[in-house]
Amino acid sequence: MTRLTLNPDRLFPADPATRDVARALYADVATLPIVSPHGHTDPAWFATDAPWENATDLLLAPDHYLYRMLYSQGIALDTLAVPAHGKPSTTDRRAAWRVFAGHQHLFRGTPSRMWLDHVFAEVFGFDVTLSADTADLYFDRIGELLATPAFRPRALFDRFGIELIATTEGAHDTLEHHEAIRRSGWQGKVVTAYRPDAVIDADHEDFRSALARFAELTGEDVGEWRGYLAAHRARRQAFIAMGATSSDHGHPTAATADLSAADTEALFATVMHATPTPAEAELFRAQMLTEMARMSLDDGLVMQIHPGSSRNHNRWLHGAYGRDKGADIPTRTDYVAALKPLLGRFGNEAGLSIILFTLDETAYARELAPLAGHYPCLKLGPAWWFHDSPEGMRRFREMTTETAGFYNTVGFNDDTRAFLSIPARHDMARRIDCGFLARLVAEGRMSDDDAAETAVDLAYNLVRRAYKLDGGTGLADAA
Amino acid sequence: MTRLTLNPDRLFPADPATRDVARALYADVATLPIVSPHGHTDPAWFATDAPWENATDLLLAPDHYLYRMLYSQGIALDTLAVPAHGKPSTTDRRAAWRVFAGHQHLFRGTPSRMWLDHVFAEVFGFDVTLSADTADLYFDRIGELLATPAFRPRALFDRFGIELIATTEGAHDTLEHHEAIRRSGWQGKVVTAYRPDAVIDADHEDFRSALARFAELTGEDVGEWRGYLAAHRARRQAFIAMGATSSDHGHPTAATADLSAADTEALFATVMHATPTPAEAELFRAQMLTEMARMSLDDGLVMQIHPGSSRNHNRWLHGAYGRDKGADIPTRTDYVAALKPLLGRFGNEAGLSIILFTLDETAYARELAPLAGHYPCLKLGPAWWFHDSPEGMRRFREMTTETAGFYNTVGFNDDTRAFLSIPARHDMARRIDCGFLARLVAEGRMSDDDAAETAVDLAYNLVRRAYKLDGGTGLADAA
Amino acid sequence: MTRLTLNPDRLFPADPATRDVARALYADVATLPIVSPHGHTDPAWFATDAPWENATDLLLAPDHYLYRMLYSQGIALDTLAVPAHGKPSTTDRRAAWRVFAGHQHLFRGTPSRMWLDHVFAEVFGFDVTLSADTADLYFDRIGELLATPAFRPRALFDRFGIELIATTEGAHDTLEHHEAIRRSGWQGKVVTAYRPDAVIDADHEDFRSALARFAELTGEDVGEWRGYLAAHRARRQAFIAMGATSSDHGHPTAATADLSAADTEALFATVMHATPTPAEAELFRAQMLTEMARMSLDDGLVMQIHPGSSRNHNRWLHGAYGRDKGADIPTRTDYVAALKPLLGRFGNEAGLSIILFTLDETAYARELAPLAGHYPCLKLGPAWWFHDSPEGMRRFREMTTETAGFYNTVGFNDDTRAFLSIPARHDMARRIDCGFLARLVAEGRMSDDDAAETAVDLAYNLVRRAYKLDGGTGLADAA
Repeated sequence: MTRLTLNPDRLFPADPATRDVARALYADVATLPIVSPHGHTDPAWFATDAPWENATDLLLAPDHYLYRMLYSQGIALDTLAVPAHGKPSTTDRRAAWRVFAGHQHLFRGTPSRMWLDHVFAEVFGFDVTLSADTADLYFDRIGELLATPAFRPRALFDRFGIELIATTEGAHDTLEHHEAIRRSGWQGKVVTAYRPDAVIDADHEDFRSALARFAELTGEDVGEWRGYLAAHRARRQAFIAMGATSSDHGHPTAATADLSAADTEALFATVMHATPTPAEAELFRAQMLTEMARMSLDDGLVMQIHPGSSRNHNRWLHGAYGRDKGADIPTRTDYVAALKPLLGRFGNEAGLSIILFTLDETAYARELAPLAGHYPCLKLGPAWWFHDSPEGMRRFREMTTETAGFYNTVGFNDDTRAFLSIPARHDMARRIDCGFLARLVAEGRMSDDDAAETAVDLAYNLVRRAYKLDGGTGLADAA
Repeated sequence: MTRLTLNPDRLFPADPATRDVARALYADVATLPIVSPHGHTDPAWFATDAPWENATDLLLAPDHYLYRMLYSQGIALDTLAVPAHGKPSTTDRRAAWRVFAGHQHLFRGTPSRMWLDHVFAEVFGFDVTLSADTADLYFDRIGELLATPAFRPRALFDRFGIELIATTEGAHDTLEHHEAIRRSGWQGKVVTAYRPDAVIDADHEDFRSALARFAELTGEDVGEWRGYLAAHRARRQAFIAMGATSSDHGHPTAATADLSAADTEALFATVMHATPTPAEAELFRAQMLTEMARMSLDDGLVMQIHPGSSRNHNRWLHGAYGRDKGADIPTRTDYVAALKPLLGRFGNEAGLSIILFTLDETAYARELAPLAGHYPCLKLGPAWWFHDSPEGMRRFREMTTETAGFYNTVGFNDDTRAFLSIPARHDMARRIDCGFLARLVAEGRMSDDDAAETAVDLAYNLVRRAYKLDGGTGLADAA
Repeated sequence: MTRLTLNPDRLFPADPATRDVARALYADVATLPIVSPHGHTDPAWFATDAPWENATDLLLAPDHYLYRMLYSQGIALDTLAVPAHGKPSTTDRRAAWRVFAGHQHLFRGTPSRMWLDHVFAEVFGFDVTLSADTADLYFDRIGELLATPAFRPRALFDRFGIELIATTEGAHDTLEHHEAIRRSGWQGKVVTAYRPDAVIDADHEDFRSALARFAELTGEDVGEWRGYLAAHRARRQAFIAMGATSSDHGHPTAATADLSAADTEALFATVMHATPTPAEAELFRAQMLTEMARMSLDDGLVMQIHPGSSRNHNRWLHGAYGRDKGADIPTRTDYVAALKPLLGRFGNEAGLSIILFTLDETAYARELAPLAGHYPCLKLGPAWWFHDSPEGMRRFREMTTETAGFYNTVGFNDDTRAFLSIPARHDMARRIDCGFLARLVAEGRMSDDDAAETAVDLAYNLVRRAYKLDGGTGLADAA
């Protein structure tokens, strides 16, 4: 068995002088509250506060970062207790855990390995690494701990120092768990975010059923353009009542459109009542981003645009297991031409705020930093998904800072459903940002004082301001 | 107030052994003369030698690197005294300066911040940083200094150790300031460069008026293909008489064409006398690059191709303020297919020299270094515009050197209208190149002697050879 | 004259603590046998074991990495004794060598310079660098050594510690040299690889003649679809008999197709018996990748896909000198959409193994690592061609590891016809990988033990497993 310890200097640059600066910067941000404005935790956890059952169901079976790597080496998803189409697996959970434990070498050099080690050491208190030899030790001990009150969702929420967490719900969601959280009197701040993809995207497998629920929840005739827009407005208000300050749009591309009212209505009719071509479905998604921007000018929701994933690339796997099974692959993504229609319409409006994400790092220096370094409505979301990693976050800072600065970025998003890894993920981001700032200091490109102030802004203040979370006081320019 | 000092080791790698090498390399290039073969200073400054008036008009209002960042954070261009459509702003200059001074944190980690600190410390002698508290101190002192003879354009030109500077003029420019400089007897070497975009690009807003001036200045019938070509030839000679050794081509893409004579004439007729489609305008620009190459074979002008900017992306801003207001956004740029027609025609001509620039860094290792590492006529211009920055210049060397070497690059271009920042910009480039060479030495990839010789070539010799500035003796292979 | 020594710490990071780790890791892999599963050495060398004649014919005239750089600086290929269309040059070999020797500064910072220094110091024992002054010393001494038994191909093969080397032969090759090697009783393991491009690619200049040989060697009617497939099957078996464990596909793009049987036959008929359009030729290449995958499921050959080179970009040079003269230029390459048809058909088959290469580094983090980190049949080939270099290999690890891990990569390929540089190339790769692992250790991202095991896997075990070379025991997960 190998000892598990977390190196206190992990993720800092190796050069001793630079590391000293990084360590000092990190000391000021390490214990700041966690603000998680975008993610995919299940609000039911916080509504019911029911205990999780075992290591496999909590840590392995829902985490596509983990099982996609194992699958890539020929391990069947059934072996790992991954549910097919949401139906619980019948695989023995301990057996699944053993397979995972026996393949830890696959995760060498990946952020998953660092997140897991953090969870194992900090959350569960293990002092030996996970391996084939310790698989049962881990499975048993995690199971015992999960059964204790200290490992219930709300207890961990408090222990993790989470100031606020946002979940993401579809436009057709009842928000019942969010209501239950509010009714419960628990003080943890769990808010929602408005994700209308399923009622906008005619290519979405749930399009028709989501529209039906959308109509039912709002009482609007969503098959008619004015009713459809009214339904969006109503649901945005319902989400705002459950704490939402943002909407989220996960389209295949960043395309936007600025059609005439007549063309929009005609397109809407085709999408709703005929069989739209792929181009028509794309144009409707594009126009709807502009419509959402228009609504944001009224109700203040911050727009998040997350484009560029080719969803469900593995045809067989999609059929056998369903969506979100680790088979979404990034694609080249254009922003300059794609966003021009929306920006031409609303790009200079003081009241609009759009946060852009990308899976195509080539856009950082070429498109995204120049756009965010000019348009007042644009900000850059952090390194995302496959790029939410030490090298990915470094590249993000190296390729965006010189053109967009730090103050056109919005702090860190964990974007995760792996609740226990949230402290590990925010810690990684803080360490990488402190390391980047330390390099600027060590290379004489920034003063110590400026770096210290910036580190706190990146860890805490910017996210609060960008997501309109009660003001974000403390920023460099707040005085 | 915070002390302003320039770290003597700034921009060198932090590792002590590598830094020692960088420091030694830099010592040999720090005070070499500045050769600035491509930029946008105003020749009227050197022709009239009139004093500049105040900090805002000199440093802020004309510098889109600065006001685009401030605009991105919601500060109106009017507030910053930025002229609309060339009409002087009525904004109080001191008030504008105070706004700029109060937002210095936005520039943390950007090259602008380092250039400004260099200008403030070295050119103006400040020993406190610019901030809201020192805004008036700065504004007053800069105003006083600008009124003294030592801060007139020609005095600074000499103080900066500029051996030669090139400005850029349109094909329809009278070159009167260049003539005035020559008539004045002043010895400063200020030359022009031939930029015919406005008489080639049918999409250019000044196309018709530029053509009219082009005809007037040359006496040619520019509405007829032979007359149009003759006008180019005549103006190239006029530019050469004013010291030009290069032409400059800022097209949206790098497309070139090699049409038959008949097709070219027909296309020309459409562009001049009908309403060309976007594709026809593009094809004409493409063909004209090949025509310019043909003329270069006769008159020896080095061609510079600067493609890949989506100009005037912000529709409202373009209408309200005009061109060049910080709203040009880089786009993906292809070179391999785009340049093939021109290279198929002239790519192996010993007399042709083409310097390629890019705003799309993905082309460095994939396209530009392989092209320049093969075709005798191609050289790579330095990291440009958004990439004229510490990280940008590092990436340029890291991604081009292994395939194209150092000797298919052309030294540094400042490409700036910010005259006072020219020493800062060349100093940054020299430091970054010395740091890159130092890393190669520290990693056992290059000898000290080779690095020392290369550092001088990058700072001084290569630019003189690439731009045909009296021979460029002293190069490694000149012996 | 300048002393030539190889820095024992070359290519390791400069930071002392990181370098110590790298040095320790490297100590364990430095002398591991060389496995070279993909390259372009000439099997005739090993079949005949005839001596090479002189430095120019061995080191300069066949190496397009070298003469493309010299050509880019205006040195004619004739001057360098480069053969035109395979016809031996009449240029004096010593004169050519002197030109090369006098231009060593062009190679500063390139991998060629490091490979050559390794060859000169380690293989030939020089202790002064190559320069104009030492050109004759080098030419004479190399000539003398090549005439000795110790410098015959087989002797060097043994001296280099090559466990196995693969050459690459066309589908229409007789494999006579491979047969001769086997008949000779020599124990060196030289195997072939199946490269059918010339009988698949209708745009290939040898398409018709290659097809004729293909038919002749197999006795099949290759003008008929079933006969054509049977010919492939027969030749794959012949290659397997000569040790092949892989096929290799160098298409312009990564496009694959999954046509119906009827559509495939119709397309085949067009390609063979009519004049296919470029799109039809492309679609046939695409379909043939899927057909090759289908055959791999039967015969077990590992597929290598090497897309993205725009071949023979220099029209004049292609006419004057022929293929492979340093004028192939990388292009943007899509994998996500391109591979979908093949992966939709066979992507989840346990028996299929496809190794992907790229000349477009933007695909590493965006497309290739996500694909290889999911599909069981996909692995990533090493940094290739223009990217087979210190910076290129670093970028490969930095951009692929976090998503695909190390165990979806396949170790190093030298891909070279420069036989004497093979130890230098593998040594460079091992040093860079050890340096990368050392950085992970120094930054607290990997344990020493994990790094040591991974270093051996990257240098030796992974290539044996990926190319199915008798089992590849010793891997982390082999226990």
